[in-house]
Amino acid sequence: MTKANFRSDNNTGVCPEILDALIEEAHRKDDSYGRDSQSSQLKKAFSELFEREVEVIPVASGTAANALALRMITPSYGMVLCSDIAHIDAHEAGAPQFFNAGSKLVPLTSSYGKLTHATVESYLAGRDWNSVNCSPPTGISLTQATEVGTTYATSEISNLCDLARTYKLSVHMDGARFANAVTASNKSPANLTWRQGIDVLCFGATKNGAMCAEAIILFRAEPSPKHKLLSKQSGHLLSKMRFLSVQLLAMIRDDLWLKNANAANAMATRLESRLRDCSRVRIEYPVQANEVFFSAPTRAVEKLKRAGHGFHVWSGDDERSVVRAVTSYDTSDADIDAFVSSLSGSSGSVREN
Amino acid sequence: MTKANFRSDNNTGVCPEILDALIEEAHRKDDSYGRDSQSSQLKKAFSELFEREVEVIPVASGTAANALALRMITPSYGMVLCSDIAHIDAHEAGAPQFFNAGSKLVPLTSSYGKLTHATVESYLAGRDWNSVNCSPPTGISLTQATEVGTTYATSEISNLCDLARTYKLSVHMDGARFANAVTASNKSPANLTWRQGIDVLCFGATKNGAMCAEAIILFRAEPSPKHKLLSKQSGHLLSKMRFLSVQLLAMIRDDLWLKNANAANAMATRLESRLRDCSRVRIEYPVQANEVFFSAPTRAVEKLKRAGHGFHVWSGDDERSVVRAVTSYDTSDADIDAFVSSLSGSSGSVREN
Amino acid sequence: MTKANFRSDNNTGVCPEILDALIEEAHRKDDSYGRDSQSSQLKKAFSELFEREVEVIPVASGTAANALALRMITPSYGMVLCSDIAHIDAHEAGAPQFFNAGSKLVPLTSSYGKLTHATVESYLAGRDWNSVNCSPPTGISLTQATEVGTTYATSEISNLCDLARTYKLSVHMDGARFANAVTASNKSPANLTWRQGIDVLCFGATKNGAMCAEAIILFRAEPSPKHKLLSKQSGHLLSKMRFLSVQLLAMIRDDLWLKNANAANAMATRLESRLRDCSRVRIEYPVQANEVFFSAPTRAVEKLKRAGHGFHVWSGDDERSVVRAVTSYDTSDADIDAFVSSLSGSSGSVREN
Amino acid sequence: MTKANFRSDNNTGVCPEILDALIEEAHRKDDSYGRDSQSSQLKKAFSELFEREVEVIPVASGTAANALALRMITPSYGMVLCSDIAHIDAHEAGAPQFFNAGSKLVPLTSSYGKLTHATVESYLAGRDWNSVNCSPPTGISLTQATEVGTTYATSEISNLCDLARTYKLSVHMDGARFANAVTASNKSPANLTWRQGIDVLCFGATKNGAMCAEAIILFRAEPSPKHKLLSKQSGHLLSKMRFLSVQLLAMIRDDLWLKNANAANAMATRLESRLRDCSRVRIEYPVQANEVFFSAPTRAVEKLKRAGHGFHVWSGDDERSVVRAVTSYDTSDADIDAFVSSLSGSSGSVREN
Repeated sequence: MTKANFRSDNNTGVCPEILDALIEEAHRKDDSYGRDSQSSQLKKAFSELFEREVEVIPVASGTAANALALRMITPSYGMVLCSDIAHIDAHEAGAPQFFNAGSKLVPLTSSYGKLTHATVESYLAGRDWNSVNCSPPTGISLTQATEVGTTYATSEISNLCDLARTYKLSVHMDGARFANAVTASNKSPANLTWRQGIDVLCFGATKNGAMCAEAIILFRAEPSPKHKLLSKQSGHLLSKMRFLSVQLLAMIRDDLWLKNANAANAMATRLESRLRDCSRVRIEYPVQANEVFFSAPTRAVEKLKRAGHGFHVWSGDDERSVVRAVTSYDTSDADIDAFVSSLSGSSGSVREN
Repeated sequence: MTKANFRSDNNTGVCPEILDALIEEAHRKDDSYGRDSQSSQLKKAFSELFEREVEVIPVASGTAANALALRMITPSYGMVLCSDIAHIDAHEAGAPQFFNAGSKLVPLTSSYGKLTHATVESYLAGRDWNSVNCSPPTGISLTQATEVGTTYATSEISNLCDLARTYKLSVHMDGARFANAVTASNKSPANLTWRQGIDVLCFGATKNGAMCAEAIILFRAEPSPKHKLLSKQSGHLLSKMRFLSVQLLAMIRDDLWLKNANAANAMATRLESRLRDCSRVRIEYPVQANEVFFSAPTRAVEKLKRAGHGFHVWSGDDERSVVRAVTSYDTSDADIDAFVSSLSGSSGSVREN
Repeated sequence: MTKANFRSDNNTGVCPEILDALIEEAHRKDDSYGRDSQSSQLKKAFSELFEREVEVIPVASGTAANALALRMITPSYGMVLCSDIAHIDAHEAGAPQFFNAGSKLVPLTSSYGKLTHATVESYLAGRDWNSVNCSPPTGISLTQATEVGTTYATSEISNLCDLARTYKLSVHMDGARFANAVTASNKSPANLTWRQGIDVLCFGATKNGAMCAEAIILFRAEPSPKHKLLSKQSGHLLSKMRFLSVQLLAMIRDDLWLKNANAANAMATRLESRLRDCSRVRIEYPVQANEVFFSAPTRAVEKLKRAGHGFHVWSGDDERSVVRAVTSYDTSDADIDAFVSSLSGSSGSVREN
Repeated sequence: MTKANFRSDNNTGVCPEILDALIEEAHRKDDSYGRDSQSSQLKKAFSELFEREVEVIPVASGTAANALALRMITPSYGMVLCSDIAHIDAHEAGAPQFFNAGSKLVPLTSSYGKLTHATVESYLAGRDWNSVNCSPPTGISLTQATEVGTTYATSEISNLCDLARTYKLSVHMDGARFANAVTASNKSPANLTWRQGIDVLCFGATKNGAMCAEAIILFRAEPSPKHKLLSKQSGHLLSKMRFLSVQLLAMIRDDLWLKNANAANAMATRLESRLRDCSRVRIEYPVQANEVFFSAPTRAVEKLKRAGHGFHVWSGDDERSVVRAVTSYDTSDADIDAFVSSLSGSSGSVREN
């Protein structure tokens, strides 16, 4: 029987278009450290995608992308505000603090996984930031789509960026699942980022079908050797960098990134819809991208596990558990059928209506 | 006409065996961050290769491998001795210092690219290391094969390691071209490393035909979460780590690493031999691995460049220049013919005898 | 009229005994960097005070003491739990993160300024610490006396240290006002620290009448050059270190530290008692050391300010404000009289009964 | 018999004028972290001294001054050129690298302890600094007076600063013994620093009679909270900062700094002159400030030691040794007499003519 793997979209392989690009490049020889013919196309390709000139720094991991991006836009004596479930704070083992020794992250209460204008404003307004004993706030970090599969509306981004401007903060967007947010929103990449005031975006490709490729997109781009040196100094300037570049180029060519994300999102919607039909199952967050959080009786969840399906238990107790199921570009109807059937068929405790 | 690319072995593509392994893995789904079925084979495979239990940390770049390895074996208040042409000092943009804030590298005069027992001993013996104002020496770093294509003999490694032991220093081996040294020496990997006293080896695969894969091999292995956390914290624990692991596994399967290195070394020998036949050309270093350093009239070197061949001008003036030519697993006879022919055919200033 | 300065005990000058010691030492010449005859007495003097062998590292600031101490007992990939009003988190501008790049501080909800066993246990027990994506907890930091003038009872320290032992965490005590806690508790320094499981104490002297002197006291002392090197590397090994040492020696000679702290505590008790007699004034925290937190009508607090008294407004709105008043070894009855009289005499809104 | 202490000028006590200032301040209460009435005079006082607006950051150690100053003017991916006997490289245990993780120091061959235009230019001109694999040069550091007691002439400073400007480098001056250089040169502080192009000076007071006080003087001063935050973050913003400030103010009041330095320099000249009269003694460096380097038979040097005099053996073998003798503001004729007499009286091997 099909065993669905909803553990994470980073459990995926490599999608055909990107694999083809890698294979083609594998047979070429070219210069190293980004001086090759593929890497030299990145700036133009991403500038077109974002409708303005941008700087592009390709790296192999999302942790590196976020930590480097934060270092590029905030000083070492500063403080970056993020949500209390932000990946940069909860799941990157201190990388932002390692890349920028002395800097701090301040997790603020989130609503549906999102920072709210009210919470950020209340935090910023309620303190005297002139004391030399306190790290001053220097940045805000948003995750789009969020860690619980919700998305920021354009107006929410714009409001937070306005606040940032008032307090002279830079704004970082962790876009490990940016594609999923873009396709869900029907907005242009530009409208979801720099047009609202985002300074730097970590454009994720790995979870969306790449092997290992993320791009730091700097919107406030000045021609500077600094960014490459920071990347090199932290070991993130690959000698055969072109193998990152071709993944990124293939990803945005012919809107592959949106096509893949759209497939993943559609499967999440389908899964949500099927789960809504199950008794004793509750959807925990609005499903706006490719993640479904639902709660169910813990006994049912344990049976799901025994059936061999992959997923995360987000929280829970003996009675009920919250499950995170992440769909991806290659999730199939059969995955969803098998998953829901394991859940609903489980000892009567959950039943598909 | 064939244009040889001898700029660097990091200009190569991906060799067929490794590409096949990547393609196969691309169609699989599996768990992330090294919890997959391929990564779990690394420890066993490399332990067999090195005839003892080792810890293996896969990373995507040589800079990351070296910087993390040094951080793992030396404290932040220490000092690592290396050769005055060591890649870690000259060409990693401060990465070792970035990964281990406060640590220092001390470049010592090299002989044929190698640290010598005499130089290191004289440096260590000539100072009082008990002063609290001086960073104490805590490590030695060797490059094998060296940056000028020479190799350390087993006895040289052993002597330096003995010295290290006397002064309680750890020993790191930068093995970006370890395969080339092993195949040249006809010694076992164990005999070239831990049996002489090496504590950590950066086992290079990228220059030898991988896409992006290096392995930190810890010989003084204790089961420790520390190493993975340091890797994660610096952004080097890839989510789809298995794509590094399959490259490394394919590389050591059926001695592919030695086969590739052997091909590269043979081509270097062939190039050297052809160059020896050219008038006004001098071989600058013993050719013991896959690099050939030769000097020639600068006018001849400029014609080589105009002919479209790739190489590095190491040093030089108006009269003569020193050229570095690096061969690789995919260098062909045609490359060498074309290169030497461009050189010897050049305005009579160089002539193949 | 007398203007009381209750802003902070770091607004004090230098008490006579310590000034005498400095003057005496000022006329001597001696060796530098702690190789002098005064510094060499530190270990013995503090070992006697704490009834066991300790290592003593003198530094000139409390921030340096805390940051170095945390670096000495926790790794760079770890996480230190502290209270949500801990000075190390709120008022040291990221120093702990700067001294130990990559490490994190996690502020937990405090009760009367103290970490509780329940809160810490619930935090530790509720998460899976084996994930390589999460910084593991590696330390706990307590402030004794706390930032709001309360003190940990021996049993509270002991319970938290037991918890730390269970989870293999080190325990740091920020003792900027340790003297005030000791004199208040009537317990020995040993009983308030290592006998309960504290690994390192920052023994404060500056706020208690020194010019600039704090001592890092390592209870798990191994003879190690490491501690001095970390101190030197961060610029905290003063060349004329003996001027720190004589302050520390004078401070513990003839129990000066307890005498000074006792005077400060007595004045806080006196201030508290006088404030309790004022209508519309409320004491906000148990007064257990040398700090009094009280709330009063904001109009009354503004008059206090206009009268020229020094204090901190901790929080507040148009109606009422919370004031922090810190007493010190040199606070006089006149200070308290003047302060209370300014408060109670103010437009009838506060009236001493 | 008098035992001279020529080990270092950091072996001195505190000169009367500075001690008086400390005593006076000890009886005052005032605000902390530089918000006091003394610290607020620093900017004006030093701006007058240097004939232009400057920023002043007081710290307690020379290591802190240098490391913070370098961090303030160079980026973390850069490289600072210094002499091969520079204190920042040889005797600060990696502090510059600790304060600025990733940065490098490059020691260049010195002549009489000084960097020369020729050496620096040859280093800078001989390399391609556009490679992303190499840390680019971003600063030059001069020590004035140097570690061997020589001084840079105004023209030497000016030439090096011109070179720096050409390559867009910042220039740092380690002025632990700046007073000795100024008084020796008969030039104004402005002429020896910013008028030639120095960007930041570490103005030393400790070796010149202070207890513990150095001032970072920023000539390219913009009003910025950054500098105070960097100081705080590294633990160098003392709570009772005014005790540093009064030392610095007393030091420059009525030219005390020049008076003290002049006394020290005169004693060095006197010692040099007496040593020139000794047979078998050779002066090793021009005596231009307060340090005398001389060589003598090793047997004679050992007798000096046994006589109880303090000094450093800089280098040497069984035959001859080089001795460093440092004079200070409080060196007396008796010290010199006793020292020379011990040397010349020693078994006939050295004899005062």
